[in-house]
Amino acid sequence: MASNRTFQAPKGTRDFYPPRMAIRRHIESAWHGASVDSGFEEIEGPMFESLELYTVKSGPEIVSQLFSFRRDGGDDDYAMRPEFTPTLARMAAAKGKSLSIPTKWYAIPAHFRAERPQRGRLREHNQWNVDLIGTTGASADIEVISTALLGLERLGLTPDDVKVRLSHRTSVANILGALGVGEEQLGPAFQLLDRRDKMDDAEFRSRAAELGLDQDGVSRFDAAARSTASMSAPLSDLADGLGVPIAALEDLSMLREGIDAAGLADWCVFDIGIVRGLAYYTGMVFEIFETSGVERAVAGGGRYDRLIELFGGPSLPACGFGMGDVVLELVLAEKGLLGDDDGEAFMPRPDVFAVSTCEEADPFVEGLLVSLRRSGLHARRSYKSTRNVGKLLSDAGKCGSRTALILDQGAAEGVVSLKDLEGGDQVTLPVDELADTIHQLVRKRDQACDS
Amino acid sequence: MASNRTFQAPKGTRDFYPPRMAIRRHIESAWHGASVDSGFEEIEGPMFESLELYTVKSGPEIVSQLFSFRRDGGDDDYAMRPEFTPTLARMAAAKGKSLSIPTKWYAIPAHFRAERPQRGRLREHNQWNVDLIGTTGASADIEVISTALLGLERLGLTPDDVKVRLSHRTSVANILGALGVGEEQLGPAFQLLDRRDKMDDAEFRSRAAELGLDQDGVSRFDAAARSTASMSAPLSDLADGLGVPIAALEDLSMLREGIDAAGLADWCVFDIGIVRGLAYYTGMVFEIFETSGVERAVAGGGRYDRLIELFGGPSLPACGFGMGDVVLELVLAEKGLLGDDDGEAFMPRPDVFAVSTCEEADPFVEGLLVSLRRSGLHARRSYKSTRNVGKLLSDAGKCGSRTALILDQGAAEGVVSLKDLEGGDQVTLPVDELADTIHQLVRKRDQACDS
Repeated sequence: MASNRTFQAPKGTRDFYPPRMAIRRHIESAWHGASVDSGFEEIEGPMFESLELYTVKSGPEIVSQLFSFRRDGGDDDYAMRPEFTPTLARMAAAKGKSLSIPTKWYAIPAHFRAERPQRGRLREHNQWNVDLIGTTGASADIEVISTALLGLERLGLTPDDVKVRLSHRTSVANILGALGVGEEQLGPAFQLLDRRDKMDDAEFRSRAAELGLDQDGVSRFDAAARSTASMSAPLSDLADGLGVPIAALEDLSMLREGIDAAGLADWCVFDIGIVRGLAYYTGMVFEIFETSGVERAVAGGGRYDRLIELFGGPSLPACGFGMGDVVLELVLAEKGLLGDDDGEAFMPRPDVFAVSTCEEADPFVEGLLVSLRRSGLHARRSYKSTRNVGKLLSDAGKCGSRTALILDQGAAEGVVSLKDLEGGDQVTLPVDELADTIHQLVRKRDQACDS
Repeated sequence: MASNRTFQAPKGTRDFYPPRMAIRRHIESAWHGASVDSGFEEIEGPMFESLELYTVKSGPEIVSQLFSFRRDGGDDDYAMRPEFTPTLARMAAAKGKSLSIPTKWYAIPAHFRAERPQRGRLREHNQWNVDLIGTTGASADIEVISTALLGLERLGLTPDDVKVRLSHRTSVANILGALGVGEEQLGPAFQLLDRRDKMDDAEFRSRAAELGLDQDGVSRFDAAARSTASMSAPLSDLADGLGVPIAALEDLSMLREGIDAAGLADWCVFDIGIVRGLAYYTGMVFEIFETSGVERAVAGGGRYDRLIELFGGPSLPACGFGMGDVVLELVLAEKGLLGDDDGEAFMPRPDVFAVSTCEEADPFVEGLLVSLRRSGLHARRSYKSTRNVGKLLSDAGKCGSRTALILDQGAAEGVVSLKDLEGGDQVTLPVDELADTIHQLVRKRDQACDS
């Protein structure tokens, strides 16, 4: 059964060796912290679902983008989940009327897409999902946006690095109506807005004219679609520029005021070109981009008030967002926020590293390690056969250990040495004082670093 | 596109609503802590792999137990991973000669099995995997076992609750040889040991006789196969009972001494009936069971010195274990270690819960929450429209918040009230002192709980 062939990870997936995994945990830890501090509660569902759960929302054309399968001998079709929203909606729907109002859920699931892998878009990735179910209004929208920003801020990003581009479905519908787009042309108009970055000016204007806009309307629509407005400037500027009454922008205006009151105006711009999927967004929509715009969106979300109902649940408003790890990691690396050592800096540091300098001490190493670890310390040992203390201590230093535990002939009498690898002091002490001494040393050091 | 139908999670998978998820995180947190404190570094791989990665080790008969698939239009066969070891071996093999010696890796991956779900065995579960690669000897074996026990101990289990049943492939081969089993009968003899619990005494004895054992040998083998020996009793008792020279048990003897020296003897028994898969275990093998024996194994592992080579890597010794979450959760629940509130006790507690008692204060809530969360506090708010302070404070208490932030007319002047929901005191203070005051209160309380 032996084999000399080697295997690779499937195309578009990632192997996380320890330093890379430490970066992933660093990112996830910011996501968990921002979610919990914002009062969201974690959920998780299966990694695969009934295929129909995906076709009900996205139609049968989604199937070719999924990894789908049947169990050998079974007759149910399943698919690895391409997104979390259907699982969330199914779980909320299953609770029916007993669901708390509001329900604040978050998840950090893995997702799968059977597409050709591209920069920022892999076949397997992890995504932070945040959802606030059961309340309407700008205040819930802002809570969702502020949670996304809290996560990004904890990773070191600032309003200079990333911007939330936000819009509002009803305000844009009002603008389009005021410019002369008929009700039946709203769908195509949103599609045009969504694709504005994929066409040149001439094409955009000719498509806009087809919607029923006159030449002046086309110009105003074009200008608005291709620019962003600051959250500090009064919204009347935007209304004036478009030639629409300020009342048409009522929902945008409430968002603006709330975001300003929450101290988040620096992070956000209005961008009526942000559309997102037409299938289920109903109100506020947003995407977060790195400011230079070279990468795909870091996150996207909005309000989808008919979603839970779509999956057989009660009629409940909801809003939320998804933030993938692939683009975010690229952005963090570009901004120098992941260090320059491929993740080594994010790996856990040992509190103590044990070295035995003679054969008589060897039998005591494993027992001491067990008791130090039981006390909650991160304790490692040297596996080398050398007795060269300098070399052994240098290994302890290399793995970043805060202290070195040195066992020599004294170990049999219960006496060991402890070297503080940061301060430099070395003390000899009885083993039964060892754990407490290391705990004190490590805690003192941490407190000094905190303050 | 609306649908009135409801969807269920696929058979054999789990929906983790918040309290259940909190239990899962509680278990995983013990696993992470025990791994890191024992010097293991976390890795992760793809959720699916080339189908061949599984057939190379387990043969083509494994395919019917897997969820396997092809991408639409692709020609590569993949399978959702049923275990982590092939991924680990592939990742280690890919590093080739540059792999550190030793390499200590752990992972907490999801696994998938296309089998009929049973108690303790689902179609999707999570498993703690720990592997020590590159060293031989009892000391590495013991480090792996002690890591498993550290995780269980941190979940509240004791030697009265669970036992490590361990054996050693070479010692058992020596025993079988000394009893008269020929080299070519060793495979069938191990299979018989593995199935001893599935047959009655008469069948076991008749099968043992077929291996070439005389009647006395059958009796001694039967007795040894059906009993466990304490780790405190001298190993010579076992050798005497079997009528084999103590030298035949040399490897077991080294394990015994090391486990005793590490202070783990209470947790372990010898059980030569522990066999595990014959395909790749080469030395020490163990399984961990709840002592009453009603549940499946909580964990299983051992030494597999040819594994990395099998996947195309360098020839490197290795040992490790896997511990699934399904059986462990059943055992913890039976022992009363998951509380009696379905996980509520494991959910994060808010540091502060904000309530607004009048309309004038409402606009300040969101901004205050954002700044409290930015400072690292877990801050929630009431979404109710009631102005009844007693009712609002009772909601704060219900979700376990440590403090309540009360906003009234004073909010416009930057003055708020903070009620300590554990101590009962209430103070009025300027908003710019709020975060620090809550941090101090929460920290003081935590320190009091620690000591």
